[in-house]
Amino acid sequence: MRKLFEYNWQVREEWFDWCETVPEEELLKERTGGIGSILYTLFHIVETEYSWLQALEGNPGVEEPPFEEYSSLEKVRRLSSEFHRQVEPFVREWTADMESHRLSVPDEEEAGFAYGEVMRHVIAHEIHHIGQLSIWSRELERKPISANLIGRGLYVG
Amino acid sequence: MRKLFEYNWQVREEWFDWCETVPEEELLKERTGGIGSILYTLFHIVETEYSWLQALEGNPGVEEPPFEEYSSLEKVRRLSSEFHRQVEPFVREWTADMESHRLSVPDEEEAGFAYGEVMRHVIAHEIHHIGQLSIWSRELERKPISANLIGRGLYVG
Repeated sequence: MRKLFEYNWQVREEWFDWCETVPEEELLKERTGGIGSILYTLFHIVETEYSWLQALEGNPGVEEPPFEEYSSLEKVRRLSSEFHRQVEPFVREWTADMESHRLSVPDEEEAGFAYGEVMRHVIAHEIHHIGQLSIWSRELERKPISANLIGRGLYVG
Repeated sequence: MRKLFEYNWQVREEWFDWCETVPEEELLKERTGGIGSILYTLFHIVETEYSWLQALEGNPGVEEPPFEEYSSLEKVRRLSSEFHRQVEPFVREWTADMESHRLSVPDEEEAGFAYGEVMRHVIAHEIHHIGQLSIWSRELERKPISANLIGRGLYVG
């Protein structure tokens, strides 16, 4: 479980670095498909991971902050670092016996979700949205960040 | 591990169904970003999963067949079913102790790859490319297949 989170975090940092080389108006421009702009996509990834993991840690109902307050690369990047610090211990301390713990989600599904299901949802969510960024990157005639998981040093040492 | 493969297989089938509603010329049209057309992306996902899992099963060096021989929805879908039948037992019988087995990859990396690394690479590879399809789907003014992992019944029973 941990390895796929580490993969996502590493790829996300590389996309933030990529963003540093792109004019901010391009990062904020509304695009076809996905959920809008490049920067809003990154904000949404950060916020989604945080709110689900907060729920697993017993703090449900975290609401997405208004994007207007975070609509610059610097602010989204800072939010990502801040939320990362908060979620990382939970991911690091994840154990197989937590797989079947249940998260109750009011008004959503009576049986709730297995913790393992939520964790994998968060993983797939980020990879999916990053795939969208890779298309927009080519529209901007820029090389996207590699999505390869092998060869990133995640399995060294 | 299994659950993320099951997720990918389910989502892939839904994309094949989605393709049934799209004119074949749109499926074969070269698009910006990614690796080309919608159909080639699906072909590439199918072939990549198969060749890596074959390597883990001791059959390295499987080469990508020429796409020209599979350039219709029906043929790619049949290839997907055929390869699925072949890889599914390996995924179903995956156990945690296989994580650290080593795959030697000549000319690639001296230390080779951990089996767990390859499995996660295959998972992330498919989700990433499916994210690209979701953008092209909106360009075609069609609703993409949901990428949600929760609520798919993967954790029922």
